[in-house]
Amino acid sequence: MEVINLNEKLGKFADHFNPRIIAELNGQHVKLGKFKGDFVWHSHQSEDEMFYVLKGKFFMDFRDQTLEINEGEIIIVPKGVEHRPRADEEVCVMLFEPSSTINTGNIENELTRVKLDWV
Amino acid sequence: MEVINLNEKLGKFADHFNPRIIAELNGQHVKLGKFKGDFVWHSHQSEDEMFYVLKGKFFMDFRDQTLEINEGEIIIVPKGVEHRPRADEEVCVMLFEPSSTINTGNIENELTRVKLDWV
Repeated sequence: MEVINLNEKLGKFADHFNPRIIAELNGQHVKLGKFKGDFVWHSHQSEDEMFYVLKGKFFMDFRDQTLEINEGEIIIVPKGVEHRPRADEEVCVMLFEPSSTINTGNIENELTRVKLDWV
Repeated sequence: MEVINLNEKLGKFADHFNPRIIAELNGQHVKLGKFKGDFVWHSHQSEDEMFYVLKGKFFMDFRDQTLEINEGEIIIVPKGVEHRPRADEEVCVMLFEPSSTINTGNIENELTRVKLDWV
């Protein structure tokens, strides 16, 4: 049993679009990520994805709209829905999703991280 | 698709030890709760439970130790482990757990909430 401090974990990595796992429960991973710039358009066939903004803000592009998610706000992207996270400035987010989730979903490119590291 | 603001949701209820559901994904609920005072000792047979402190701090008593969880910190209580949340002052927490989870686990008393409300 341990207490996990998010700021301490966030201080341990600096790269963008390469989330780290900080905890696992009930088959789900809790991850921390830093985003800056445009991610790739993608969807997840079987997993809903939750993004919670710890610091900063980002935009979630959907095919028919764009939503702005600010500090202290959450968005859930249902399975199957195409989306693209995008951030003008660095944003720190917490992610909740099944441990099976691949960051780029149905797309495989240089941003794909099949196996994430723990931090 | 909607953006969920945690402070706005927290402003919508005031009672202690009666969490509200704010989101559902992958069979899991995301809940907000306000704790003050001592909760009841209990465990969950099948569910790990995550507590994330949004504001304030609380103590998690275990049979062999007590941990202090401060703002920006997380604790995960594995299934089967007896625990008791306890807060001297009001603390606001986000919970992440399977939608089947009952707040008092294996104990049924006046604090039990079989069906939680959404907020």
